[in-house]
Amino acid sequence: MPREPRMDAAIVLDSAGELWAREGRRVSAGELVAMGMREDGGEGIFVHSRGFVEVATGGAEGGEEFRFMTSSVSREKPIDYGVMARLLLEQRDAGGYTVWVTGPALVHSRARDDMVWFIEQGFVGALLAGNAVAVHDIEASIFGTTLGMTGTGEASSGGHGLHMRAINAVRAAGSIAAAVEQGVVTDGIMHACVRHGIPFVLCGSIRDDGPLPDVVTDAIAAQNAMRDHTRRATMVVLVATALHAIATGNMLPAFYDAGNGDLRELPTICVDSSEFVVSKLKDRGTHQAYGVVTNAQDFMHILRLYVERETASRSLAGSPAGEAR
Amino acid sequence: MPREPRMDAAIVLDSAGELWAREGRRVSAGELVAMGMREDGGEGIFVHSRGFVEVATGGAEGGEEFRFMTSSVSREKPIDYGVMARLLLEQRDAGGYTVWVTGPALVHSRARDDMVWFIEQGFVGALLAGNAVAVHDIEASIFGTTLGMTGTGEASSGGHGLHMRAINAVRAAGSIAAAVEQGVVTDGIMHACVRHGIPFVLCGSIRDDGPLPDVVTDAIAAQNAMRDHTRRATMVVLVATALHAIATGNMLPAFYDAGNGDLRELPTICVDSSEFVVSKLKDRGTHQAYGVVTNAQDFMHILRLYVERETASRSLAGSPAGEAR
Amino acid sequence: MPREPRMDAAIVLDSAGELWAREGRRVSAGELVAMGMREDGGEGIFVHSRGFVEVATGGAEGGEEFRFMTSSVSREKPIDYGVMARLLLEQRDAGGYTVWVTGPALVHSRARDDMVWFIEQGFVGALLAGNAVAVHDIEASIFGTTLGMTGTGEASSGGHGLHMRAINAVRAAGSIAAAVEQGVVTDGIMHACVRHGIPFVLCGSIRDDGPLPDVVTDAIAAQNAMRDHTRRATMVVLVATALHAIATGNMLPAFYDAGNGDLRELPTICVDSSEFVVSKLKDRGTHQAYGVVTNAQDFMHILRLYVERETASRSLAGSPAGEAR
Amino acid sequence: MPREPRMDAAIVLDSAGELWAREGRRVSAGELVAMGMREDGGEGIFVHSRGFVEVATGGAEGGEEFRFMTSSVSREKPIDYGVMARLLLEQRDAGGYTVWVTGPALVHSRARDDMVWFIEQGFVGALLAGNAVAVHDIEASIFGTTLGMTGTGEASSGGHGLHMRAINAVRAAGSIAAAVEQGVVTDGIMHACVRHGIPFVLCGSIRDDGPLPDVVTDAIAAQNAMRDHTRRATMVVLVATALHAIATGNMLPAFYDAGNGDLRELPTICVDSSEFVVSKLKDRGTHQAYGVVTNAQDFMHILRLYVERETASRSLAGSPAGEAR
Repeated sequence: MPREPRMDAAIVLDSAGELWAREGRRVSAGELVAMGMREDGGEGIFVHSRGFVEVATGGAEGGEEFRFMTSSVSREKPIDYGVMARLLLEQRDAGGYTVWVTGPALVHSRARDDMVWFIEQGFVGALLAGNAVAVHDIEASIFGTTLGMTGTGEASSGGHGLHMRAINAVRAAGSIAAAVEQGVVTDGIMHACVRHGIPFVLCGSIRDDGPLPDVVTDAIAAQNAMRDHTRRATMVVLVATALHAIATGNMLPAFYDAGNGDLRELPTICVDSSEFVVSKLKDRGTHQAYGVVTNAQDFMHILRLYVERETASRSLAGSPAGEAR
Repeated sequence: MPREPRMDAAIVLDSAGELWAREGRRVSAGELVAMGMREDGGEGIFVHSRGFVEVATGGAEGGEEFRFMTSSVSREKPIDYGVMARLLLEQRDAGGYTVWVTGPALVHSRARDDMVWFIEQGFVGALLAGNAVAVHDIEASIFGTTLGMTGTGEASSGGHGLHMRAINAVRAAGSIAAAVEQGVVTDGIMHACVRHGIPFVLCGSIRDDGPLPDVVTDAIAAQNAMRDHTRRATMVVLVATALHAIATGNMLPAFYDAGNGDLRELPTICVDSSEFVVSKLKDRGTHQAYGVVTNAQDFMHILRLYVERETASRSLAGSPAGEAR
Repeated sequence: MPREPRMDAAIVLDSAGELWAREGRRVSAGELVAMGMREDGGEGIFVHSRGFVEVATGGAEGGEEFRFMTSSVSREKPIDYGVMARLLLEQRDAGGYTVWVTGPALVHSRARDDMVWFIEQGFVGALLAGNAVAVHDIEASIFGTTLGMTGTGEASSGGHGLHMRAINAVRAAGSIAAAVEQGVVTDGIMHACVRHGIPFVLCGSIRDDGPLPDVVTDAIAAQNAMRDHTRRATMVVLVATALHAIATGNMLPAFYDAGNGDLRELPTICVDSSEFVVSKLKDRGTHQAYGVVTNAQDFMHILRLYVERETASRSLAGSPAGEAR
Repeated sequence: MPREPRMDAAIVLDSAGELWAREGRRVSAGELVAMGMREDGGEGIFVHSRGFVEVATGGAEGGEEFRFMTSSVSREKPIDYGVMARLLLEQRDAGGYTVWVTGPALVHSRARDDMVWFIEQGFVGALLAGNAVAVHDIEASIFGTTLGMTGTGEASSGGHGLHMRAINAVRAAGSIAAAVEQGVVTDGIMHACVRHGIPFVLCGSIRDDGPLPDVVTDAIAAQNAMRDHTRRATMVVLVATALHAIATGNMLPAFYDAGNGDLRELPTICVDSSEFVVSKLKDRGTHQAYGVVTNAQDFMHILRLYVERETASRSLAGSPAGEAR
C-alpha cells in the first residue's frame, strides 16, 4: 500500500523503501517515481482497479476508479448541436415524424420565433403542449406580451389581465383555428400550426386559466390524443416542460420501425434548466437520448442556427456551384 | 367582500346582491360583471390594493397585489442579447475596460472558441479566472480533451491523467507565456491572452491540482491582483463561476467615472445555470446588472452571434452601400 | 468621491487629502478613518444612498445599497419551525381548516409516517394531491415499496411493476375507501384519511398510470373539487409539488374571514427543494407566506418534532404539575 | 413485435393474432393477456432485455430496460439517517477520526447549535472550513446575527457591517483561541473547538473579508494543512460547501487502514441542496458515499436526533432496567 493515497498524485518510492502518493508539486528531482502510460502491465504498471473493492464488498461493484465526469447529464458537458441538427434534417428528409413537446418558458422567451421557423421549415410533425403554451403564444400575438411581460422582460401596466383577455378572444372565436381564420391571431406558434396543418394536442392541467376551447381537459382523453402521435413518432424533442416531457416519455417506445422491420432506436432530445428533469427522463430507459441542460430560449436559437448552417453547407455541396469548388 | 376570492377571476353580482369571484368559465351570459380596464376609479372601479394589508399589518407592506413574474432573476424571463451585445461594442469602441471572469464550464464546452474570438476582437480588457480554466484550456490545446473528455463529451482512454500532464508541460516551460512562446500551447484562451497582450489573473484555490506556475496561490495577493483590474473596470462579464464571480462582485464599485466626473452605473452581466448564484450576485447591490440563467456554452455562442450581427449591421449602415439604402 | 470604491471597506483620508475605500487589512494604525455607527448624520456621517442613483437614473430606483441577503427565498436562510408549529396548533385548536397539498416525494421518503401522524392528530382539514401520491402510498402499504424502491432506497427485484399491481388492487376493490374497508390497504396516508374521515381530492394528470378509481381526471372538475376546500381554507401547507402547489396558489384568497368579518391573512407554507418553485409561488402575491427550501422528508420530520415539543411544553404549563413548578 | 409498445402496459393478444401493448385501463374482461411474475421464462414469459439493443448497437449497452429510479443521487430518494447515525457512533466509540467539512449555510441557520453539540459529544475529529464559517459563527456569538440577519432570518438595522466588526474583534484579540480566552467569543462552533481542543483548518479564498488571523490564505499551505487531517480520516462529513467538499474529496483515499492492514472503505456523507454538487463528489470515485440532497440546517437537526435516539436505545439496552425488559 502506498502511504497517504489520494487521486491525481504520483507514486514515489523513498529511500526507506516506502511507497507514497504525492502531489506533483511535492516530488523532487531525483526521486524514484512510477512511470508508464499503459494500465495493463505492459510498461510495468498494472492497474487492478477492483482489487480492494472485491476484498471489501465481495466484488459486487468496482471498475470505476479511473473514470470521472461520468454522470450522463451535466451542465458542464459539451452540447453537440451538430449531431442534433443532423438528426432533425435526416428525419425531415426521410419523411419521419418528429414530435415536439414544449413548455411555456419557450413562449415567454424569444424562442417563439425559432419555434415558428421549425414549423415552417417542416421539422415539426406534431406539437404536444399545455394550455399555457397556447395562451402565452396567443397573448403575444394579440397584445405583444406574455403574462403581461414585454419581450424584454419588463412588466407592462395592466398586463396582469392580458392572458385572460387572450383566452376570451379565442373563446369568442370558438377555437384557435377559427381565431386564426378570423384574423384575431396573426402570428406565432399556434398560428403556424394552423396555417401549415400541423396537428397539436393541448392537454389540460389543474393550473390552467380558461382554458382555451381546444384544450383536452380530461387527462385520459389527453393521454389518448398524445398517444396518437407518440406511436407514430420517429424522433421526439422535449423542451422545458417536466410534466409533458415525462408524460410523453411514459408513452414512447424504445425503438421504432423505419420500414420493413428495420428497428431503430428512437432518438429523443430533452432540454431543461436543471439536471433533475433531464436525468429523470433518462431514468425512464429511453435509449438514444440527448440530454441538454440549458435555457430553452438559447437551445432553440442555437439549434436553429446549426440547422441553417448544415442546410447551407449541404446546399453548397449539392449545387453546381458547390461542385465546381 | 366578494365571496370565494381568488386571482384571475371576474367579479359577479348575483340576483341576491352578493358579489362573487368567479373563473371566466363559470360566468354565464346575462350576469352582471364588473367591467373597466382602469384601476384608478375612472371607469367605476378603484383598485385599493393596500386596503386589507393596512388593516392586517398596519400598512408595512402591500402594493404588490397586481404584479407577478416580478422576481428579478428567472430562467423563464427573456434574455436580451441585443442589449448586451451593444454594451460590449460601446465599451470596446469607447476604449472601456471590460473585465471577464470565467469558470471552467466555459472551457469544458465549445465556448472556448467563442472566448478566443472575444479576445481577438478586442472585447476583453482582462481575464480573471482560476487554475482550472487555464489547465483545461491548455489540456485542450495539447491533448484535445478537457479533464479527459473529448469535445463531444466522451471519456477518452487514459484521459484521467491528461490535466496533470498539461500542468507538467507548463511547469517544464516555466510559465504559460513561455509555453506559448515555445510552441507547447498553440491555441485557446490562454494562448490568445498571451498573443494579444491581455492581462490575466489566475487565482489559486484549495481545489487546484498543480497548480500552474502563473497561479497566485495566496488569497490576499490574489485579491490585490484582481483589484488592480476591477478598479479600472468599466464593464464586467461573469460566466459560470460562483467563487470568482462573487469575489469580483465584492470588489466592484456601483459606478465608474467615464471621464470628467461623468459617473455611470457599472454594467455587469452574470451568467449561471442556476438562479441561486445570479440572485446572490444581485443581492450584492450592483445596479445595472443583467442576470442570465443559462448554460455557459450557449451564452457565449449567442452573445458572439449578436455581436457579429450588430457589427455587420453597423458596417452596412456606415458603408457607402449602406448609405445608398 | 473616494477612490477605488467597493463594499466592506473603510473610508480613509490620506495625507494628500484624498479619500480611499480600503479593505480593513490595508488600514494602518494612525490613519484617518471615517467612524460612526449611525447613518443619519448624527455622528458626522450621512449615508445618502440614493445620491448617485438619482443622478444616473432619475431616481426611479435606489435605497438598497445597504441591504443584502434580502432575497425572500434562499436555502441559506434560517427556517423558523417554531413559528410554523405554533401556526398549525393555533389553527387546530381554533377549529381552522388546514389544507395540505402534497407531492409524491413525500411518500417516496419516510415522511409518510409523519404525514399519517399529522392526520391522526387533527392537523389536516383536507388533502389535495395527485394520483401518484395515492399510488405510491398504497404500494407501500401492500408491497412495502414505492415505485419498487425499498424504504432505504434500494431497487427491489420485479419492483418495476408493483405500482401497477397496487393500482389494480384498488380498482378491483372499487375505490380507496373500499380497499381500506376490505383490508387491502392497512396503513399509510390514504388509510388514515379514510379512517379519520378526512376528505381528499386526487387530481388526474397526463403523467398518471392507471389511474386509481378515485382520481378526478377532468382538470376543470378537479379544479372545482379543489376549490371546495380552498375556499374554506384558514391555512395551507404545500409540500414538494410544483403542479399542485401552483394550481392551489391560483385559487387561494389573500385573506380569510376568521368570523364576524375579522379578516386575517391566510398563512401558507411552501416547501420545495429549489428556490425556483418557492419563489414562483411567492410571485403569486399571497401575503403571509413561509417559503422553505429543503427536502420534503426532512421538513415533515422536523415540523412534527416541533409540534410535539410545543404540545409537550403547553401540556406541562397547563397541568397541575406544571403549575406547581 | 407488439404494436404501440410503451412502458407500464399489458401485452394483449387480439382476435386477429396481433400483440398490443395496452395501458391497463384499455384492457377488457375476456381479453388474452400475458401473465407471469417471473422474467426468466419459468412462467412462460422470458424477458430478453438486450435483444434489440444488441441488434441496434452491437451489444455495447443494455440490460437497463426494467430499472428506474436508478440515479444514485436524487432529492426523491429516502435518506437513511439511522445508518448515518450508527456510522458516527461506531467511529466515535472505536476511536476513529471523523473529519467535518462545512460551509457557511450551516452557521446562517440554526444548525450552529447542533454542530456545537456534535463537537461536545466527541463526534468531531477535526473541522475544515473557510473564513466565512468562523466569521459568521463569531458574529453570532458577539452580535447575535449572521451577516446582519437575526436567527429568524430578518435583516437588522446596521447589520451589514457586523461581520466586519466581528473580524476586527478577533484581530484585536490576536486569534480565535485568544478571543475565546479573553471572553470576546463565548459560544458557538469555534468556541467549542477551542474549548474541546478540536483542531480546525480555516482555508482562505478570494471571497474572504478580513480574513480572520487564523486563516491559511495560501492555497497550497491550506491543502497541506487539510491533508494532515484527511490522511488520518476514518470518516468524513461534508455539509453545504462545494469548494471545500470537492477540495477534500480530491485528497481522500478510497480505503483506510482500521489497524493491522484491515482495509475498509472510507465512509463519506455529502450534504447539499442540489443534486449537482452531491453527484459531482460521487463522480470522484469515493466508494461508501452517502449523498443527501437537503437543507444543511435540517440535516444537522435530524442527524443529531437520530444519534440521540440511537444512544438512548443503546443505553436502555445496556442498563439493568434495559436487560430486565
